[in-house]
Amino acid sequence: MTAFTGAGINAAPFSEGVTTMGTGRNDRNKQLLVRATPTGEVGPEHFEVREVEIPTPGAGEVLIETHYLTMDAALRLIMRNSSDFLFRLGPGDLVRNTVVGRVVTSNHAGFAPGDFVVAHTGVQTYAVAKGEELEKCDTSLAPASAWLGPVGVSGLTAYFATFAECRPQPCDTVVVNGAAGAVGSMAGQFAKLAGARVIGICGSDEKCRWLENELGFDRAINYRKGDLYTQLVDAAPNRINFVFDNVGGRVLDESLRWIAMHAKVLLCGSTSQYGAEAMAGPSQYIWLGTMRASLQGFVIFDYEQRYEEARQHMARWVKEGRLKLPEHVIDGDVGDFPAGFRDFYRGANYGKMLLRLPAAR
Amino acid sequence: MTAFTGAGINAAPFSEGVTTMGTGRNDRNKQLLVRATPTGEVGPEHFEVREVEIPTPGAGEVLIETHYLTMDAALRLIMRNSSDFLFRLGPGDLVRNTVVGRVVTSNHAGFAPGDFVVAHTGVQTYAVAKGEELEKCDTSLAPASAWLGPVGVSGLTAYFATFAECRPQPCDTVVVNGAAGAVGSMAGQFAKLAGARVIGICGSDEKCRWLENELGFDRAINYRKGDLYTQLVDAAPNRINFVFDNVGGRVLDESLRWIAMHAKVLLCGSTSQYGAEAMAGPSQYIWLGTMRASLQGFVIFDYEQRYEEARQHMARWVKEGRLKLPEHVIDGDVGDFPAGFRDFYRGANYGKMLLRLPAAR
Repeated sequence: MTAFTGAGINAAPFSEGVTTMGTGRNDRNKQLLVRATPTGEVGPEHFEVREVEIPTPGAGEVLIETHYLTMDAALRLIMRNSSDFLFRLGPGDLVRNTVVGRVVTSNHAGFAPGDFVVAHTGVQTYAVAKGEELEKCDTSLAPASAWLGPVGVSGLTAYFATFAECRPQPCDTVVVNGAAGAVGSMAGQFAKLAGARVIGICGSDEKCRWLENELGFDRAINYRKGDLYTQLVDAAPNRINFVFDNVGGRVLDESLRWIAMHAKVLLCGSTSQYGAEAMAGPSQYIWLGTMRASLQGFVIFDYEQRYEEARQHMARWVKEGRLKLPEHVIDGDVGDFPAGFRDFYRGANYGKMLLRLPAAR
Repeated sequence: MTAFTGAGINAAPFSEGVTTMGTGRNDRNKQLLVRATPTGEVGPEHFEVREVEIPTPGAGEVLIETHYLTMDAALRLIMRNSSDFLFRLGPGDLVRNTVVGRVVTSNHAGFAPGDFVVAHTGVQTYAVAKGEELEKCDTSLAPASAWLGPVGVSGLTAYFATFAECRPQPCDTVVVNGAAGAVGSMAGQFAKLAGARVIGICGSDEKCRWLENELGFDRAINYRKGDLYTQLVDAAPNRINFVFDNVGGRVLDESLRWIAMHAKVLLCGSTSQYGAEAMAGPSQYIWLGTMRASLQGFVIFDYEQRYEEARQHMARWVKEGRLKLPEHVIDGDVGDFPAGFRDFYRGANYGKMLLRLPAAR
């Protein structure tokens, strides 16, 4: 790897929608496997590449050529040595990933060669999946890559966190922790559409400028610089009515110290804890008592019936120039995924970070 | 000190209601002051007794002879060296306490000698207070001492936690952390009245027997013995719908690991953290996300308009034999308060713990 396309917004090429070529079947399928269970930071040493035959689709199945891989913090969580979670990856397992790919051959009436699909087929260049397990990307609404980010699970999480779980009003102040991330960068924009005052917390001055200048946040704070609590108090004179928390840890702690009466802290993620040897809870949680506030969890899949409605609204807002779909695309092959994931976990990304494979270029 | 009246239920003498004697004005007023700010456990070394003149009530004021002092975990919190909290006690301050006392002389039309009142007058044998700051104990509903516990803030917290904040149903399982405490011993009974399955977590086998045999809990678990999580799973086959948390820390963590979908964890207190050098949050809080659950704070004073209604219900249930008002009364003088508080904080109490002063005997 890897040429960054930069802190791109709508950087994904729209031309993908017309790709129709088949793959040369002399290729091999490159797969990324877990080599070792990490403690602390995940890096290339925890993975290995294997080459196998490209699989052949059976009845009702589809062969997919992978174009985009997603950088998702939850991968760190399922690589933990813990039986607490539904999914768990250990040495020898194919690395789980939700991908966007192009249909090469199809034995399912719902899909034709050239269709772009979302598939849960892991980090590999080709995969076979049942048609029922795929979702077609409607590229008239947004580019295929956006199905992994702004109009995919990240953006939908932000959408329903804002418009269903919190419903902020113009008199409210919303703090977005992990504001430059895939969920945060959308959540802040949605809260602005609802008329609220929006403060983003992120990890660099450059990200602060991006949030304020490109995405319209009222204020962005670099949590690595100065006293976070003091800056929050300054930025939110009427205290904080909603916290969209994607990170946990110290950033959440300082936010809790400045919540308003009846505030709601919505748990969208806890990235700072996924890799921690011993997870730590929000040490300032007793403020929830004092302020009659709540810390609320939710799961995006409960809103599945409303995804289409949400995407229609998003596409309209994009067309009206009121919403941006931030993507951060890096180019590389399957073997570049581990270094990309490490950089992502260190906070390299501006919006949704994707790895674009050679087949997509 | 101190003769324990034992793990008494309704141990307080009803005869108080007819006490009418004045005090011999040759007495002095004994006050308990903070001597040093504690780190870790609070003990007698952090307090000192001072004797001063008994004060004289001015216009609109009342002289009160203190009968009962309350053991309240929040005292540990306000003795912390922290500016985070509204009230804070430092060396030289009178120890804050809500007391039940008898009116000796009154310059306020609302109170007559012999009346029992709740006063926020601290740890001292006599005090002067404005009539407006006092609440009269209606001893036709419950003994005066109960105004500090089962029909006071502790019991009211349990009442509104159950019937307003959580509203458990007969199909629900409720876990009460700190079940043998002032709030927990009432909350478990209220949840039983609502028909729910009630599991109490406490710190000794004797307390377990007390909860199951005297208070009607379906099951009690000693968190100091065996694996708490395994015992919870066994006791709550359908997972936990509501947690009334009074303690935080490990007991809360293990409860969170077994919550049901859409569970609610109600923060009634966080006693395990009040004295901790660095407070720790619930390390298993990411289960709130997975289970679409919430951790909710509330403050009893928001329900002040409904206290009377709650007390009427409680008095009726007591009369019908469906509710007990657990009190744990120890006898002693003002100077015995620190050792009593230390024992209380170590978990000595069965229900609400009170220190009965010589004037009440």
